[in-house]
Amino acid sequence: MSSHPLEPIFHPRGTALVGVPSDPNGPGGSGGFLTSIMEQGYHERFGLYPVNPKATEIAGLKCYPTLLDIDAPVDHVISLVPARVVPTLVEQAIQKGIRSIHFFTAGFSETGDAEMAQMERTMVKRLTDAGIRVIGPNCMGLYVPGVGLAFMGGFPKEPGNVMLISQSGANAGDVVHNLGRRGARFSKVISFGNGSDLRAHHFLDYAISDEQTEVVTAYIEGVQDGRKFFEAVKRLAAVKPTILLKGGLTGAGARAAHSHTGSLAGSTQVFDAMCRQTGAFRAETMEDLHDLTIAVTTGLKRVKGRDVALVGGGGGFAVLSSDSLAREGLDLPPAPQELKDALHEFMPIAGTSANNPFDTNMSTPELSERALRIVARGPFDVVIATPSFDRPQRGPDDEPLDTEAKRKHALEAAEKAAEQFGRLQAETGVPFIALMRDRGASPEVADRFAQEAYRRGVAVYPTIHRAARAVAGLLEWRERRAGLPDII
Amino acid sequence: MSSHPLEPIFHPRGTALVGVPSDPNGPGGSGGFLTSIMEQGYHERFGLYPVNPKATEIAGLKCYPTLLDIDAPVDHVISLVPARVVPTLVEQAIQKGIRSIHFFTAGFSETGDAEMAQMERTMVKRLTDAGIRVIGPNCMGLYVPGVGLAFMGGFPKEPGNVMLISQSGANAGDVVHNLGRRGARFSKVISFGNGSDLRAHHFLDYAISDEQTEVVTAYIEGVQDGRKFFEAVKRLAAVKPTILLKGGLTGAGARAAHSHTGSLAGSTQVFDAMCRQTGAFRAETMEDLHDLTIAVTTGLKRVKGRDVALVGGGGGFAVLSSDSLAREGLDLPPAPQELKDALHEFMPIAGTSANNPFDTNMSTPELSERALRIVARGPFDVVIATPSFDRPQRGPDDEPLDTEAKRKHALEAAEKAAEQFGRLQAETGVPFIALMRDRGASPEVADRFAQEAYRRGVAVYPTIHRAARAVAGLLEWRERRAGLPDII
Repeated sequence: MSSHPLEPIFHPRGTALVGVPSDPNGPGGSGGFLTSIMEQGYHERFGLYPVNPKATEIAGLKCYPTLLDIDAPVDHVISLVPARVVPTLVEQAIQKGIRSIHFFTAGFSETGDAEMAQMERTMVKRLTDAGIRVIGPNCMGLYVPGVGLAFMGGFPKEPGNVMLISQSGANAGDVVHNLGRRGARFSKVISFGNGSDLRAHHFLDYAISDEQTEVVTAYIEGVQDGRKFFEAVKRLAAVKPTILLKGGLTGAGARAAHSHTGSLAGSTQVFDAMCRQTGAFRAETMEDLHDLTIAVTTGLKRVKGRDVALVGGGGGFAVLSSDSLAREGLDLPPAPQELKDALHEFMPIAGTSANNPFDTNMSTPELSERALRIVARGPFDVVIATPSFDRPQRGPDDEPLDTEAKRKHALEAAEKAAEQFGRLQAETGVPFIALMRDRGASPEVADRFAQEAYRRGVAVYPTIHRAARAVAGLLEWRERRAGLPDII
Repeated sequence: MSSHPLEPIFHPRGTALVGVPSDPNGPGGSGGFLTSIMEQGYHERFGLYPVNPKATEIAGLKCYPTLLDIDAPVDHVISLVPARVVPTLVEQAIQKGIRSIHFFTAGFSETGDAEMAQMERTMVKRLTDAGIRVIGPNCMGLYVPGVGLAFMGGFPKEPGNVMLISQSGANAGDVVHNLGRRGARFSKVISFGNGSDLRAHHFLDYAISDEQTEVVTAYIEGVQDGRKFFEAVKRLAAVKPTILLKGGLTGAGARAAHSHTGSLAGSTQVFDAMCRQTGAFRAETMEDLHDLTIAVTTGLKRVKGRDVALVGGGGGFAVLSSDSLAREGLDLPPAPQELKDALHEFMPIAGTSANNPFDTNMSTPELSERALRIVARGPFDVVIATPSFDRPQRGPDDEPLDTEAKRKHALEAAEKAAEQFGRLQAETGVPFIALMRDRGASPEVADRFAQEAYRRGVAVYPTIHRAARAVAGLLEWRERRAGLPDII
């Protein structure tokens, strides 16, 4: 385990939720912290203590009138109290001897009110002088699946290799939900809001030595210590893929960032230059951040060149896809004659194309396997293919299948297709991308395919445009890292 | 009803499917025509005749050995036979006195084979000389919900006001499915493939006088009669919003288009200039085509300027959204003081923003209604808001709700939110855009909201980026139509 000074923050043996509402499912939303942490099972391994003077039990857990009434060690406090109550909580936290406190509580410097900004500085100084680290205020705090902390319901319980550092809690939640549905898993997720004590550069520095973290993604609104941030990104990006998304790069975005986290935003040019100098990825949009994370955590990370083979999806789709790939600077080299001949052996000519893009018959797993294996032997750096799932309407006894049986068949077919893509990628050594377009497969089936494919190291994208951007982003990143160590 | 010469093609009283497989659910896919048309109920209103010498009944319909054996008038033939059988079918079609024939059959000019190209020309001349119009070959043909023709399953049964003309059948299917899920409905959809007889300009010309058609979208790979195409677009775009997407504008796309429909593609510059000169929309991607169609068929079409109000979604989302809007040339003007004061009356300061973007509390329909009504009174050309659905966990008797009860509540909440957006748009006169982001609402709930909102004239987009592009696209279109009639 890393001996980084921030390590204890991610391993609290006791956590108190101060100000949690007596009905955690009631209006307002702050009860979600308790139910989300219980959903992860934290309370079954460590002490979880709701604090609310108006209740004796919440969600089956004993409830305490104040932090000081808890008759057990507390390492971490989640503050859900209004700002005016914070001074009292600060004194109690010091008395209790906690190690870290996360303020969901908002209403400080981000309001633009000088008095509240002063109050934020005062409370943070009081806490840090006492050796207590502060996350926030105005943020969602920690999601650490390894210990069972979480700030929203429905987060995956298994830990993974992606760290996410986000100034915005909602954006952090969206990333976990969306990337989680695509199969990615997280080591630590930190929403740090105003960053009054701990901020981006602290967590970036921690990520360097955290053994669970292999890839780091960060959403930043304002850089508070420019030099420290730059140095931390530089050290981190040298050893782990680091994907940065900066909000507030336009005038309107900067105004919104200032009102959101009190951040002063920089310019696109400055941020872009920083990414170039440090060897970090620059995500231009939230979708880029998602898609690059998928790219660097799957076999796609090994893509070395611009020559794409595109398989399946229909003629019109192939035409528009070719345009999309070309616009991102990728090529679709023609198929060599022997490859065409091999495909023609089992493909009818009519209505299909044996050239690149390959509009081959992929209607059964066997045909798909044969076609993809032949294509992967060609002179291509990456194979992009639309999987087609076997969708039987009748069972082995020739009886029509009912809805539930069809659902099971569809899920099995999705798993088989994912297994096939993973196996072909492993056997041929060529990175595969699976396109899982919105074409009528149920979301359950689409998600199952994406997750199973990801588990086998295959990158899945919802559109050719996003797949093309991910490939182009990887290649560009690799090019400008010349001189830096080869880390993926 | 229009007296356009093509009108009869869209009203066949009898339709024969020649070469339909005896098991319409079997492999190969061409059986889908029969089941799709039956799903639309065509056979309950008109004559539907499967032709296959190896069957006497298919899907409950009497099956005929040849076209000539059908003892009733046949207006339209769908050819599912292999190319080599086509000459025989052509002679039978002439003898039977049909009016139109659609060749799903592929393997002609698009293969690049000179002999097959010659065969295509010969058969088309033979048919058109006999007064029979030809759709295709190598295409999916017609979807006309008003009479019950369709080429894929799951197409909406209700007709609508959007015509789609597509050289690609798969793309046509994707448009119908995707726009259909978003609430749009179609007057006529035509997939015309190689366009050996009827092609884009014929259908564009038909659209001018078709009373059911209010908006025309077209996916084009190759323009076969440049001058006629240009003139048809010009006449049509002067009177109805016309959205054009051209595939094959890059080198790679052009090669794919040639292999798909034998088309010779043009350049981006030429196509862009044509759209500018005629006053048509130019969609750059398939998503643009979808999103512009939504824009011109909802209240959004009245948007007159670039000043956007953005409501809800959380702070980090507001920051990235502001960046997205600014990148598309849209503005987020600050809120006037009296508007801020009105919002502050019922909004806590902490964690929310009363400036634009407005991060107001939208957690109940009442709060949402109040906030949106205040914002719509401000100096904005369009209000973009993320609806939040009431999601009760407990029933009126305070018992926890089961899954089915939660589902029903969620669907009702989605309908109420759609009704609210529609009502506010109607009452305030300001166009509303609802963002339906992928944030954990079930697809069923998301689709219900989108469809109900559309039915009430509210445009729904899945991302702020796509909403911004649609608004910017509308404004740009309006600007360069100066001098042309105001048609929306």
